[in-house]
Amino acid sequence: MSEPENKVTRRGVLAGAAAGGAALAAGAAKAEGDPLITEVQPWAQGLGEGVDATPYGLPIEYESDVIRRNVEWLTADTISSINFTPIHALDGTITPQGCAFERHHSGAIELKKEDYRLMINGLVDRPLVFTYADLERFPRENHVYFCECAANTGMEWAGAQLNGAQFTHGMIHNMEYSGVSLRTLLNEAGLGAAGDLADKWVFVEGADASSNGRSIPMEKALDDVLVAFKANGEALRMEHGYPVRLVVPGWEGNMWVKWLRRIEVTDAPVESREETSKYTDVLADGTARKWTWVMDAKSVITSPSPQMPIPHGPGPMVITGMAWSGHGRITRVDVSKDGGKTWETARLGTQGDSKALTRFYLDIEWDGSEMFLQSRAMDETGYVQPTKTQLREVRGLNSIYHNNCIQTWWVKENGEAENVEVS
Amino acid sequence: MSEPENKVTRRGVLAGAAAGGAALAAGAAKAEGDPLITEVQPWAQGLGEGVDATPYGLPIEYESDVIRRNVEWLTADTISSINFTPIHALDGTITPQGCAFERHHSGAIELKKEDYRLMINGLVDRPLVFTYADLERFPRENHVYFCECAANTGMEWAGAQLNGAQFTHGMIHNMEYSGVSLRTLLNEAGLGAAGDLADKWVFVEGADASSNGRSIPMEKALDDVLVAFKANGEALRMEHGYPVRLVVPGWEGNMWVKWLRRIEVTDAPVESREETSKYTDVLADGTARKWTWVMDAKSVITSPSPQMPIPHGPGPMVITGMAWSGHGRITRVDVSKDGGKTWETARLGTQGDSKALTRFYLDIEWDGSEMFLQSRAMDETGYVQPTKTQLREVRGLNSIYHNNCIQTWWVKENGEAENVEVS
Repeated sequence: MSEPENKVTRRGVLAGAAAGGAALAAGAAKAEGDPLITEVQPWAQGLGEGVDATPYGLPIEYESDVIRRNVEWLTADTISSINFTPIHALDGTITPQGCAFERHHSGAIELKKEDYRLMINGLVDRPLVFTYADLERFPRENHVYFCECAANTGMEWAGAQLNGAQFTHGMIHNMEYSGVSLRTLLNEAGLGAAGDLADKWVFVEGADASSNGRSIPMEKALDDVLVAFKANGEALRMEHGYPVRLVVPGWEGNMWVKWLRRIEVTDAPVESREETSKYTDVLADGTARKWTWVMDAKSVITSPSPQMPIPHGPGPMVITGMAWSGHGRITRVDVSKDGGKTWETARLGTQGDSKALTRFYLDIEWDGSEMFLQSRAMDETGYVQPTKTQLREVRGLNSIYHNNCIQTWWVKENGEAENVEVS
Repeated sequence: MSEPENKVTRRGVLAGAAAGGAALAAGAAKAEGDPLITEVQPWAQGLGEGVDATPYGLPIEYESDVIRRNVEWLTADTISSINFTPIHALDGTITPQGCAFERHHSGAIELKKEDYRLMINGLVDRPLVFTYADLERFPRENHVYFCECAANTGMEWAGAQLNGAQFTHGMIHNMEYSGVSLRTLLNEAGLGAAGDLADKWVFVEGADASSNGRSIPMEKALDDVLVAFKANGEALRMEHGYPVRLVVPGWEGNMWVKWLRRIEVTDAPVESREETSKYTDVLADGTARKWTWVMDAKSVITSPSPQMPIPHGPGPMVITGMAWSGHGRITRVDVSKDGGKTWETARLGTQGDSKALTRFYLDIEWDGSEMFLQSRAMDETGYVQPTKTQLREVRGLNSIYHNNCIQTWWVKENGEAENVEVS
């Protein structure tokens, strides 16, 4: 605990406003009041807007900065671009589809439900082709899961580079999916022909030009993988794989194949481009880790952060962020204000589901001095999120993927924040 | 149980597609195949769309019918209109803000955060005026809650009138809210001046011209009421009360005051227009029930339904719908295919939170004969959703509000469905 000695209470901070309010309540000293509460405002003097004109609504104009953003130099061209979720400006756990990060390898395609087909072939008793309407006839499930790109935080391997939580950690979203268990569809095709399932795989492909093929071990395919049609209640957006994508809970986002077209049961991994030259982790000695599917426990403070400076002076304030683990539930998050020397356990704002985002809060009295804010997530396996130093010792500096290190924001006395490293 | 004798399996129904698929797998008889899976399609031959152009995304054009809809004759003018959630087309439990039903009494107003003020006055130790930035400094909570208009299903008192779940039951949405407990803000103002809290009330008002004032007993105000800024992670949309609305879990939507402006602690209810001439329930003898705040347990089948006919012949299919209770958790939902003579217990697709939507499914083999589909919700208090006949016996036919009766869809042999009553 490193609580400031000079405590300022929440009540104290509101004294200015309260003085006006108290005077108003006594019916006196109107001039001391705030006209925004004492005078009838234009929006209370007439009719507002009807909503019939917006049968599908968008955010109000004043929130026009809460959007997906790209970092132009990160990808070679706009077609293979990454759009980052504005996590700095969000709260709770659900990510709206409209601002949920999006990565594709050959552009988002427009595929009508009527034109949609899903083939299951390979080592199955009976190859099948499903239409979209066929899929809707199988028992459905609903689950909230996070989806994180393996390259999320990848630029931080080399140092503190991107000045904003949106850019360092925004390749993640968290949605409620509705769909059919992949297990159900594989059983429909029949796995008898595959023999011993322990060493079998499925190879999944999308309908886009990149096809983005990935191999998934049968054990995972029969566990919790979903063939999903809906996210947050409604159809998947085009950029999220309309009409059908794969949901591979806790595993890297590249495996969540969009515009899902084909599932082949195989006796070995395909070793596709996306799991050899890409999405493997080059170590210090030049060898590469592969089959690093699971996204380990990770967290980040979203506010305050470089895009969310503290807008006020010393006193009460809320530190908030999000934590997640591909291995299960988040059980605890600690927050440090001094770059990892001392830690306080944060409050979890509703316990997130397994393999879903958890929101955390630390309610503090800020003494106005600089802070080096960090958060450290723990999951139900006992795993503790590592420091950047610990991660580099094991993994070197050559990698792009699977950087789940502790992030530091240097919050200055003026409330502004900056991406830094602490030794 | 009333399972059809002539069972058609899921496997059987897919035989047509499978034949093609099987042939393809063997590399033979390509002409028998489906070109949509056997031939390279235009969307796989080049680059799709970049997403940089849509920093905040909307649904794909093919889903343009999944929108809020109005029923013109229901309200006197467009300014006081109701927009219904397209619940027939949704799955899971979360409602996207963009298509979440919206009701206002004098139009949706545009209110900047900088212009926002919230006053707490009346029987408090110290009247306070909060800015938006002030509110963000208090400890926050996250909860998923349903919000249902008291008039939802109101047209059904007189008979089966509106032909679609969107119109009979669409005045409901279910979102994850982030905000400050009202209890926290009341304690900040200090409730010592109010004396014994058991008989005290708060009167809540909005900043719009209607002000939509409602009285809430102190016990509820100190229980689970939220002063919310965000829904499903992002800022409230204009039509949902940007920047701040009240969330009154389990209670009628009219009390969830939008553009929240003032909270007065009082020693009696105000008996405002919105709780006397409106939002009271006129009984058969002309007297009115009042303070009927809680939304009792209720459910509706969303598919199949009049807007969602069965698109195929006999065989496997999914019946789905949603259930909710203002008293707590949904513990069970039963489904009848014969107008309430026999019932089967539905599968709950993830247990919803207390005072939040629960999704249910019944996976059946449809024999192709007509069905009279009903659903019946039960909550943790042991309450069972009543039939329309039971409700009319107690409440008569004069009311608009609080109709939580069992709904019947007549599904015909051709798969089309119609809103009907069964005796």
